[in-house]
Amino acid sequence: MDGISKKLYLTMEKPTEEDSRSSQRRILDALDALGIKAAMTLPVLRSLYPLCDRADWKITASLAWDGSRWMVVRLEAGDTSNCHYGYAVDLGSTTVVTRLINCTTGECMGETSSFNGQIAYGTDILTRIFYCKDQPDKLEELRRTTVDSILDTMEKLRADTGIAPEDCIQTVISGNTTMIHFLIGIDAFCVFSTPYAVRADAPDFLPGREVGIPVSGYVYCYPGKSNYLGGDIISGMVETEIYKKEEVCAFFDIGTNGELVIGNREFLLCGAGAAGPALEGGVVRTGMRAEPGAVERVQIKDGAFVLDVIGGESPRGICGSGIVDMIAELFVSGWIDLRGKFHPEASPLIQRRCVEDPAMHTEMDDADPDHRIEYAVEYGPGLYFYQSDIDEFVRTKAAAYTMVECMLKESGITMDDISEFYVAGAFGKHVSKESAVTIGMYPDMPRERIINAGNASLDGAQKLLLHKDRLEDIDGLLEKMIYIQFGAVEDFLHIMVAAQALPHTDLQRYPSVVNRLSQRQQSAENKRSDL
Amino acid sequence: MDGISKKLYLTMEKPTEEDSRSSQRRILDALDALGIKAAMTLPVLRSLYPLCDRADWKITASLAWDGSRWMVVRLEAGDTSNCHYGYAVDLGSTTVVTRLINCTTGECMGETSSFNGQIAYGTDILTRIFYCKDQPDKLEELRRTTVDSILDTMEKLRADTGIAPEDCIQTVISGNTTMIHFLIGIDAFCVFSTPYAVRADAPDFLPGREVGIPVSGYVYCYPGKSNYLGGDIISGMVETEIYKKEEVCAFFDIGTNGELVIGNREFLLCGAGAAGPALEGGVVRTGMRAEPGAVERVQIKDGAFVLDVIGGESPRGICGSGIVDMIAELFVSGWIDLRGKFHPEASPLIQRRCVEDPAMHTEMDDADPDHRIEYAVEYGPGLYFYQSDIDEFVRTKAAAYTMVECMLKESGITMDDISEFYVAGAFGKHVSKESAVTIGMYPDMPRERIINAGNASLDGAQKLLLHKDRLEDIDGLLEKMIYIQFGAVEDFLHIMVAAQALPHTDLQRYPSVVNRLSQRQQSAENKRSDL
Repeated sequence: MDGISKKLYLTMEKPTEEDSRSSQRRILDALDALGIKAAMTLPVLRSLYPLCDRADWKITASLAWDGSRWMVVRLEAGDTSNCHYGYAVDLGSTTVVTRLINCTTGECMGETSSFNGQIAYGTDILTRIFYCKDQPDKLEELRRTTVDSILDTMEKLRADTGIAPEDCIQTVISGNTTMIHFLIGIDAFCVFSTPYAVRADAPDFLPGREVGIPVSGYVYCYPGKSNYLGGDIISGMVETEIYKKEEVCAFFDIGTNGELVIGNREFLLCGAGAAGPALEGGVVRTGMRAEPGAVERVQIKDGAFVLDVIGGESPRGICGSGIVDMIAELFVSGWIDLRGKFHPEASPLIQRRCVEDPAMHTEMDDADPDHRIEYAVEYGPGLYFYQSDIDEFVRTKAAAYTMVECMLKESGITMDDISEFYVAGAFGKHVSKESAVTIGMYPDMPRERIINAGNASLDGAQKLLLHKDRLEDIDGLLEKMIYIQFGAVEDFLHIMVAAQALPHTDLQRYPSVVNRLSQRQQSAENKRSDL
Repeated sequence: MDGISKKLYLTMEKPTEEDSRSSQRRILDALDALGIKAAMTLPVLRSLYPLCDRADWKITASLAWDGSRWMVVRLEAGDTSNCHYGYAVDLGSTTVVTRLINCTTGECMGETSSFNGQIAYGTDILTRIFYCKDQPDKLEELRRTTVDSILDTMEKLRADTGIAPEDCIQTVISGNTTMIHFLIGIDAFCVFSTPYAVRADAPDFLPGREVGIPVSGYVYCYPGKSNYLGGDIISGMVETEIYKKEEVCAFFDIGTNGELVIGNREFLLCGAGAAGPALEGGVVRTGMRAEPGAVERVQIKDGAFVLDVIGGESPRGICGSGIVDMIAELFVSGWIDLRGKFHPEASPLIQRRCVEDPAMHTEMDDADPDHRIEYAVEYGPGLYFYQSDIDEFVRTKAAAYTMVECMLKESGITMDDISEFYVAGAFGKHVSKESAVTIGMYPDMPRERIINAGNASLDGAQKLLLHKDRLEDIDGLLEKMIYIQFGAVEDFLHIMVAAQALPHTDLQRYPSVVNRLSQRQQSAENKRSDL
């Protein structure tokens, strides 16, 4: 591994009157002999004595890249070169995921996550931003909380592995622009307010102890491209390496916001937009996080729901992947039409109901003048999926597809030119590709070319930890990326409206869905004729 | 000035939706346009907002060289580029001298000194070293005291000029190896114990706040060559630039220890040895520091002493420059001979006296069996200069001259090859060249080639502050310097003994002294024949 840290065992001759070089010089000369020019931090200078003598001049030096040179950041007696660790951190607005990496072998020693403590200041980012806007004391609270959430994951990893932050050299953090602003203690209002020029987008390598993370070396934060296209996406680029490929690829990260990059080694277009909390189960009335009790897979077989529930329990709600399945199945089964509207005659499970919030169930009153009557389908005991849930979700999926469509339009290429379509994040990991294509959220392309990129943000952090040369890649790709304002794309509204059909008003774009629909119809007709 | 700091006024366009580069990027781009690639410290990232907006994007950036790149270490609103300051510090074991420099003009805004607080732990360095040897808590006391002594000078300069450490970017410190060890908190026993391999001899640039000196940038400590040849001498080299000259020069720093460098752009020989506290008035019984009441100039005219006393008071003792004059005058007047022994018949002021310590005057008892009777000359009311004072001083001057002689022998050059003979430090500043040549402490060479280098250590610190390219010089000259162990030089003892005569056993080396002696003799004979 040729990463941003090194751990080197050095055996040196002890000083004599003939060779009375200083301890510092002996170590730097020994490193020089290995081809490494380095400098030393003050804590290391202070540790030279009595360490070197006691260790009989057999010591292990920890080296950290500081952005421009190698710094000796720690000395240990004896050979500890195999204890060479670092952290990769995905600093999400909801969850912090941290991996402890053996930087010699590249092996992952452990991965853990914690909720981001910022949640206490608001579940959505804007609330957090307003909480501390122009209030340095409160900003410091947010900063402290962010650091503590990271430290919490590190403490969990210590409990699991016995390896403490002090035993680690470098930390690579990928996070969106707001998260990085909070991490280093900068007001983040700029992220969401015109003219969307942020404060700091390339913190680079900062001393760990200054950031508050007690590794011996530095904290590297992935730089961002713009307010909505942060270090988490750049990290995903580094992981998927689409900027190195000959064929055109797309990288799509869908969550509350959607970020999209399309390009190859010649060009990179990028853009971001609101995708909507619908994807995370936040808008659907029985929506919930992917926890035990959440429906994660939905099928309609012989007119009945077949559900997969996390933990095998009885269902309490439905999470993102379940929602996508639900809409795809309703559509393919003919229970909803191209516009996403229920056809009540298709199933006795579709009924008119008063729209209710399960949390407020007992308080809802049918006589309430504000109550709304809608069609809904009962997908589990007492669990209803409403027309307005579908409408909301369809708007969300349209927003996502519109990004792809707009960017293709800007670049003058077609979907057929896309060789690989990476979907990053929890959505890409859990959602059925087939369902996502069926509802027109993903383009209709050979399924093996739709690639679940997993937590590409975290993977990219790990990759940088282990491959120092990626730093040069980052400079290059940031320069190459061209930011597209989707709203400014010609025909934006047209594109958006067309994407609000299931799967799309232009069915030629979705041949496999047309095919699936006709197969289902055929099979339904066959069944009817069998009777 | 092209120093190790910069202060640059930047006027930037404010962000727009079309140009929404981050605050950080705007500043780094503006610097880039001036040809400077820089990075930012965490405190600077945190200060970007609201500073840039409030200053309407007219800001001044302080840049500090960190040893490998330019770091933006401070931002200020408006144009403060003419408030560009730094410190040069001579960290002596007795005195800390600090200059506040305008780093744009090179002008010295003020110079001040404080006693080194380490004195409380022992007047001589060894006592201080033993005080904290292998005791980290006590070492920390010494470190704190050293830093406080420097801060004390900075506070004095603030009182004088209104310019605080926070307004300064860089600090350059020159000090001997022990001083630098204490400054950064490293046990210094290594300096005086075999095999004389010290711990750290090139601290390079350390963040000011880590060292404890609250400048916005870094503290640079001059590197040392060896235990006895510290950063103060390297600083003197940078000041005098003998490493750049075509003709061979000598650089001699005489204090408690003597350090000597001889060479030019082709070669550099260096060495160090105990010179002796005699030079600082520490051994002579009526010796004292160069304070009011100290005799600083001595002449013998018509058989009587003519004294210059600091402050014009009545004399209380004699300081270094007075001692050198004293011995030269006694010798030229024939009151002492080539071996430095009194000729009592030469003056009625020479008498046999019980050796007394003025501090113990009342307690001395002539009947004491341990008392010693010696010749002494009364140079002022109740002030005696003893035979043993002379003997001690002659040993000291012999040690100093021996260094020069040994080094010439090693290099195969002669005194005539030396084009300039720099004498650094308080000794060089205050001692009469004529007297120093007369007693054989300096070589007998044209007086204009004996150059008072003043506080070359401090001057060299200032020079580096203002000339970044000297950093490369330092690497080169450290490599070029060859350390000579004087004791290992062939004929060392011979050379030493020969140097114990006044001015030297080989009078051919001192033609001007021979000439002076014969002139005096002539004049005395003329006077006698006049009578």
